[in-house]
Amino acid sequence: MSTPGLRTPGPTGSRFGQTGSVTAFETPSEPPYTAVIFTSTRTDGDQGYAVMAARMQALAREQPGYLGYESAREGRFGITVSYWADDAAAAAWKQVHEHAIAQDRGRTTWYADYRVHVATVTRAYGPSDAPR
Amino acid sequence: MSTPGLRTPGPTGSRFGQTGSVTAFETPSEPPYTAVIFTSTRTDGDQGYAVMAARMQALAREQPGYLGYESAREGRFGITVSYWADDAAAAAWKQVHEHAIAQDRGRTTWYADYRVHVATVTRAYGPSDAPR
Repeated sequence: MSTPGLRTPGPTGSRFGQTGSVTAFETPSEPPYTAVIFTSTRTDGDQGYAVMAARMQALAREQPGYLGYESAREGRFGITVSYWADDAAAAAWKQVHEHAIAQDRGRTTWYADYRVHVATVTRAYGPSDAPR
Repeated sequence: MSTPGLRTPGPTGSRFGQTGSVTAFETPSEPPYTAVIFTSTRTDGDQGYAVMAARMQALAREQPGYLGYESAREGRFGITVSYWADDAAAAAWKQVHEHAIAQDRGRTTWYADYRVHVATVTRAYGPSDAPR
């Protein structure tokens, strides 16, 4: 694996943590780091979901060890991946008070189903890396 | 982490590997296993993309060590996560001839940008597991 495991970010934050672009980490990092893959199926209606989702993305960004955030939703089904310096940083984010409240409301209101996979990233590459 | 890392699938394949539902692995598996997180930004126009994407999902499912597949695209930005028994199974899938051709065409035609994160899943849980 060559160096560019993570790309150099553009103007500060411009492509960072946004739905709609491939992650460019604000703090360039080399594996290993932690990815939290959150897949979910939404219930009907917004019920405050959009506001919460935007708030959680902003709040995550303020946490120690935060590296990046990517999200896509297609109809009811969505995938959000957050990246963290290590498992401890990801675990600390899970315990942040406002996030814990959101998780609770997610279970009761926003999600018909969800699954979390906590994973250790061992390799990362993009188109600027050697093909294959 | 309690047992239910992965949920019991419903009627064979019914909720499996589908865009639009949370993964229920066909073969129940406990971590560790491998997740390949593929994030991408599409170019304009279809140019055969939809047919290829469906074909790759079907082809992946036939590979040894395949566990599951989830995908969501929101506008140009998409996240696909495939799950494999181990890194060797994920690496073998990358080398499958038809998939290699698709990757090449992805680089030249379908994707404006992409990033691959190969990760080892260490924990997995859902709503039926104890909160927190």
